[in-house]
Amino acid sequence: MSILILGGDGYLGWPTAMHFSSRGHDVTVVDNYFRRNACTELDTGMLYPVPTLIERAKIWHEKTGKEIKVVIGDLSEPEFMRSLFTGNFNYQWAVNNTFTGIPETIIHYAEQPSAPYSVMDYKHADITLINNLRVTNNLVWAVRDYSPETHIIKLGTMGVYGTPNIDIEEGWLEVEHKGRKDKFLFPRQASSLYHTTKIMDTDLEWFGVRMWDLRITDLMQGPVYGIETEESLIDDRLKTLFNYDEIFGTIVNRFIVQSIVGYPLTVYGQGGQTRGYLNIKDTLQCIEASQKHPAKKGELKIYNQIMETFTANELAELTQKVGNKLDFNVQIDHIENPRKEAEEHYYNPAYQGLQDIGVTPHLLDEASMEKMFKVVEQHKNNIRKDVIFKGVKWG
Amino acid sequence: MSILILGGDGYLGWPTAMHFSSRGHDVTVVDNYFRRNACTELDTGMLYPVPTLIERAKIWHEKTGKEIKVVIGDLSEPEFMRSLFTGNFNYQWAVNNTFTGIPETIIHYAEQPSAPYSVMDYKHADITLINNLRVTNNLVWAVRDYSPETHIIKLGTMGVYGTPNIDIEEGWLEVEHKGRKDKFLFPRQASSLYHTTKIMDTDLEWFGVRMWDLRITDLMQGPVYGIETEESLIDDRLKTLFNYDEIFGTIVNRFIVQSIVGYPLTVYGQGGQTRGYLNIKDTLQCIEASQKHPAKKGELKIYNQIMETFTANELAELTQKVGNKLDFNVQIDHIENPRKEAEEHYYNPAYQGLQDIGVTPHLLDEASMEKMFKVVEQHKNNIRKDVIFKGVKWG
Repeated sequence: MSILILGGDGYLGWPTAMHFSSRGHDVTVVDNYFRRNACTELDTGMLYPVPTLIERAKIWHEKTGKEIKVVIGDLSEPEFMRSLFTGNFNYQWAVNNTFTGIPETIIHYAEQPSAPYSVMDYKHADITLINNLRVTNNLVWAVRDYSPETHIIKLGTMGVYGTPNIDIEEGWLEVEHKGRKDKFLFPRQASSLYHTTKIMDTDLEWFGVRMWDLRITDLMQGPVYGIETEESLIDDRLKTLFNYDEIFGTIVNRFIVQSIVGYPLTVYGQGGQTRGYLNIKDTLQCIEASQKHPAKKGELKIYNQIMETFTANELAELTQKVGNKLDFNVQIDHIENPRKEAEEHYYNPAYQGLQDIGVTPHLLDEASMEKMFKVVEQHKNNIRKDVIFKGVKWG
Repeated sequence: MSILILGGDGYLGWPTAMHFSSRGHDVTVVDNYFRRNACTELDTGMLYPVPTLIERAKIWHEKTGKEIKVVIGDLSEPEFMRSLFTGNFNYQWAVNNTFTGIPETIIHYAEQPSAPYSVMDYKHADITLINNLRVTNNLVWAVRDYSPETHIIKLGTMGVYGTPNIDIEEGWLEVEHKGRKDKFLFPRQASSLYHTTKIMDTDLEWFGVRMWDLRITDLMQGPVYGIETEESLIDDRLKTLFNYDEIFGTIVNRFIVQSIVGYPLTVYGQGGQTRGYLNIKDTLQCIEASQKHPAKKGELKIYNQIMETFTANELAELTQKVGNKLDFNVQIDHIENPRKEAEEHYYNPAYQGLQDIGVTPHLLDEASMEKMFKVVEQHKNNIRKDVIFKGVKWG
């Protein structure tokens, strides 16, 4: 099976590439190093240096004999996106330098993924909007024009739903109004511009599915935590990039880093904000399950990609417990909430769909968190305390 | 009152500028001639030549003694949008060449407004997406940063709702689900990329309103028909631009032109498609009523801006009746539907809100249509039969 991964250099993109490559698929990754460049620009720090995509593909080949082809380019440019379907591009690295052909599955991670980044100022808002929307739109049109049978798997976010006062279903809602009924995309209203672009992505997909019978799966993912995956254990240099700052670091990853360097855990406001979370290993399981159970022609499948829910306070307390057990003296600080969000709210999302097609959750507990502490601790000397908190405000 | 009109060269923008100028407001129009350039590129034809925005502003000044200031530039560029708030730009024409200051009201028409244009191919889709989304996002951020008290009036479209099987409310819907309730933006799914960008515009606005307490009114407008407004009668050269082709010409305007040149009325498919319509004079009334009843801080007001509904068949039959009375031998052709849309469907939109704040509808009847026939007939020799039908397909 030929699989094209857009955004193959990112936190999830690279582990996904190794995951499918190790299972015998013909994998091509595309990236423009947007994330790395943004980390450099914003001086966010990384837990350890990460080889370029080309170096990583070479290491992967050396260690496993398997090939992950690499293309570097900006997918927000329509002509570049289309070249991936016509073969009118060059691989930056490949063992066998001939066009793989049109992919059966495309996994689309190629988006600016940070909420704080998207609301820093009008320039970063503009970059987020244009990058995310253009990539998705270019992809929909390229698939329409060149390979309508290709299954697109796109990463969305649970953040599109916000915190409504009704149960959150998996993507769709049957509405009864004045005695009549219809089914719609579940109501969505997000609290960052990044999350809002994900609402729009789904609108573009749903348009393509209805107009041109495309096949799309949209995975509404919660914040992911974790470092290691089965394939990263093969060689230390294959570990995915790991941010621990407020802009690109997700909450669990960040809390562990903060604990290790004695930076009090920064809980925003009252800490009652409830969200769904998952281990990076489960992201890979979910993507693989979606790839094995593709959407049909003219179907937009939506799954809520989380394995359990926690409040910010619960995550802080768990981190503190594990950290203290490991002799870090972990403090918790309730700081003024820089975001505009409800700090106490109803939250009851459905998320059974992915487990129904074969995903077995790795839950977050003391043991799994302790393992993460151990891995992060090895890189303790790289951690820069001064870049953890950036003070990006929504207001 | 200082009023800034974005997209002031368009079918509705220019009449709006004259309308507010004649009522004593300090009006500035901004445009990049996108619409004219697109008409040239696509060879769509215009019913009569239209002077440039600068020429029109000069004629307006000459005839009325009133000033409409003109700025030419691309509002999808963030820095240009922001310059309108800082004064760091040049008027291309103004009697008094000093910065008017930050506007109290901004009327936002600056969008690619054609559904067929947006689905012609991936390039026109990309242009539509980027132009429409960037302009709205730039506007929201500029108002956030420089003048959060300014009231934004944005033109949306009834097309965002599609043709749901439930009654269409004015922008919002109270949903009850599993015994709990919440209120959301009314479910939206559109059948062109253009209409989809209007869904996204509203998402951007709603984000800005929730995060930064902006004041926004979104007018979900149906297809507009008509040529003359009170102010265009002052001088023939002040008439708004008038397209009659399938891409930029709205259905009633197009049917009248087709009748006059003996081109059979092109009804798509069965012709049961029902939509809401309004006279261009009522667009001006609606904008003025919205300006007089601004949204409050932190409020997104949504109105459905239509005055009555018709099926495509009803419009064709009315046009035929009036045309035949005037001795045009009007034929009706049911052609294969180039669009993907329901040809028989439930349609019951609410649209009382604007009438409640003072709008008195001009309804479409034989008398008002006959008047339009008379105006169009004066320009009969300019009509190019070969550009009416372009054959843009959704499929």
